[in-house]
Amino acid sequence: MSQNPRPWLLPAGFEDILPARAERIESLRRSLLDLYRSWGYQQVIPPMLEHLETLLTGVGQELQLQTMRLLDQESGRMLGLRADMTPQVARIDAHRFHADQPNRLCYAGTVLHASSDHYGGSRAPFQIGAELFGATGPAADAEVASLMIESLYLAGCEDLVLDLGHLGIFRNLLGDLPLDPASESVIYLAMQRKAADDLLAALQGFGLAPGRRERIAALLQLQGGCGTLAEARAILGPSGTGVTDALDELDSILASLQARHPALKIQIDLAELRGYRYHTGAVFSVYTPGQGSAIGMGGRYDNIGAAFGRGRPATGFSLDLKQLVAPVQNDQTARIWAPALADPALAARVAALRASGQVVIHALGSSTDGNLAQAAALGCQQALVEKNGQWELVPVA
Amino acid sequence: MSQNPRPWLLPAGFEDILPARAERIESLRRSLLDLYRSWGYQQVIPPMLEHLETLLTGVGQELQLQTMRLLDQESGRMLGLRADMTPQVARIDAHRFHADQPNRLCYAGTVLHASSDHYGGSRAPFQIGAELFGATGPAADAEVASLMIESLYLAGCEDLVLDLGHLGIFRNLLGDLPLDPASESVIYLAMQRKAADDLLAALQGFGLAPGRRERIAALLQLQGGCGTLAEARAILGPSGTGVTDALDELDSILASLQARHPALKIQIDLAELRGYRYHTGAVFSVYTPGQGSAIGMGGRYDNIGAAFGRGRPATGFSLDLKQLVAPVQNDQTARIWAPALADPALAARVAALRASGQVVIHALGSSTDGNLAQAAALGCQQALVEKNGQWELVPVA
Repeated sequence: MSQNPRPWLLPAGFEDILPARAERIESLRRSLLDLYRSWGYQQVIPPMLEHLETLLTGVGQELQLQTMRLLDQESGRMLGLRADMTPQVARIDAHRFHADQPNRLCYAGTVLHASSDHYGGSRAPFQIGAELFGATGPAADAEVASLMIESLYLAGCEDLVLDLGHLGIFRNLLGDLPLDPASESVIYLAMQRKAADDLLAALQGFGLAPGRRERIAALLQLQGGCGTLAEARAILGPSGTGVTDALDELDSILASLQARHPALKIQIDLAELRGYRYHTGAVFSVYTPGQGSAIGMGGRYDNIGAAFGRGRPATGFSLDLKQLVAPVQNDQTARIWAPALADPALAARVAALRASGQVVIHALGSSTDGNLAQAAALGCQQALVEKNGQWELVPVA
Repeated sequence: MSQNPRPWLLPAGFEDILPARAERIESLRRSLLDLYRSWGYQQVIPPMLEHLETLLTGVGQELQLQTMRLLDQESGRMLGLRADMTPQVARIDAHRFHADQPNRLCYAGTVLHASSDHYGGSRAPFQIGAELFGATGPAADAEVASLMIESLYLAGCEDLVLDLGHLGIFRNLLGDLPLDPASESVIYLAMQRKAADDLLAALQGFGLAPGRRERIAALLQLQGGCGTLAEARAILGPSGTGVTDALDELDSILASLQARHPALKIQIDLAELRGYRYHTGAVFSVYTPGQGSAIGMGGRYDNIGAAFGRGRPATGFSLDLKQLVAPVQNDQTARIWAPALADPALAARVAALRASGQVVIHALGSSTDGNLAQAAALGCQQALVEKNGQWELVPVA
């Protein structure tokens, strides 16, 4: 193995998380899992890696490119490191649970990415989220979107803006067009770039009924405040029940979120096609000032479990917990120093302080640490000192 | 990609952890990290993967074989998935902290193994542990061993037996023998197999002083209760100060552990060479009836950080948390069902119940779940029902 002149250097996109930040991550992790639990979402822990074909069943191309691969020397098969826990949790719902009831699951863990194009350059986001399986209808989408908003408030995020879209609208407008993958891709990219002329050109030649091409291109304009939904109804009205059902769903989700989160700003964006090959209904993402990319994303992805033997309605969201905990200075929590003595009264006092949540550091009895100077060097603000047979807390100078 | 007839099948040694067990794992994880925090051990979060050469710096051959490898398509370099977090934490101490004070760090996370030879067939142990850097002497070893014992008691383990050894004794007895790797390996394997004749044969031909060969072989007998240390002093006395210093250390660790943990059974084993290429001083492992392998292991491994620019004394331990949480039936925690109504009084009651730690599942307003029958199907034992304008908890039949 070649000698590395800087052996401590980590691969780009990976990091060591030091105590002050680790403590905040741990604390938020607990608060969020407790929140999900209180809403009835039960935690599952999927494995860090799976057979590659299992991991890539039913997911989009982006996730395939982001999945790191390795050969399993035990079986000779290709394994993949999870790049997203959502499909894993859908597999667990499909294969491990058998009742037809709605099933609420949550999860928290590191996912790994082949490249650092997203997530602020990190290749190891800490994904936490919740998924609701077996429930159709806007109430389920509103529940998970609402839980996502509560998560972000709990993390201290403010001035949230929720972008709300629905992939059913674009899908229904395309409808029965005989699209090969290449022309579908051209249309999709024109939508992504909001390039109306390219979109109109790509839709030519399919012999669309009068106005249908223009209604598809109109999606690019249907972006804005809550009035956008009424505008969409006027423009897209003649497009059939698939489109009006989707607009009804968005109306219902919007009303529910407005009632539950009065301070939340909601934007409608009917041209939003994030997760086009994966999502099937309402989709939502949350932004906050000062962060260029979404801090929370979710939506409906029905039937992803079909490949595992049970297609079920599904909706959910996930967050990158590390993105929510900003880098911090290494501030020190309060600590108490205790001398290295085998005194039962001291031992009892130390045990009681620790049990009450205080941090007590025991001196180790070496020549250098038998005095209070060492207490200060260890960052202790108080020390246990014997006075008249009692162990008392005194400030460290 | 070939079609897999059983797409849900996980690679051997990996598992999905379902809600009842996940909840117990999460709960123990929190209790242990809180315990370490109260002793002054600060959490760090090392990355799931690193450059392979960094990960394998200073570790033993077994860990090299257990480390899964993959090519980083971003840099073209080989990466390794962590098989043990201890060397990562030593790297963090060496490179990220600069004071010469003792530094107490703890960690918790999944590690991945190339094969399932160890850890009850699991290839994804959940490693949790604590490390104390910058402190020589038996008080430091006794502190981490004691913290390991408290961890196991907290996990509900009983009838613990601690095996205590010291690699300095065997090392000092071999001393200045001009051993090539092959003969060192023969001697090491004879020790591991407790094969006295093979050991004596392997030691022949080095021109050892009278009695020295027999003293090395005597280690195989120096195994048993606490009286073993006095016996060792009698037999190994003429072997020099390196050996007697090691015995002094063991005496001190033993006395400290006996004082702190009266119920703990302690066995001395001077032929124990676990982690021979990695450990440098006292080593300990804990066993409990009904588990064939150790449930906790640790010991001293000074200077592992030297490759990262700062050799420091180091001692610590780690546990596999999943091994401590036995498989359990999917028992249901108490749950409350709430109807799908937009009543502010109901919303306030639900929020208060959730904030108090109760689990409340909201009906989703679809035709199938608007009644109490669905509450029972979801595993709810109570439901919120309106009586005379008040939302009351009633039992679900």
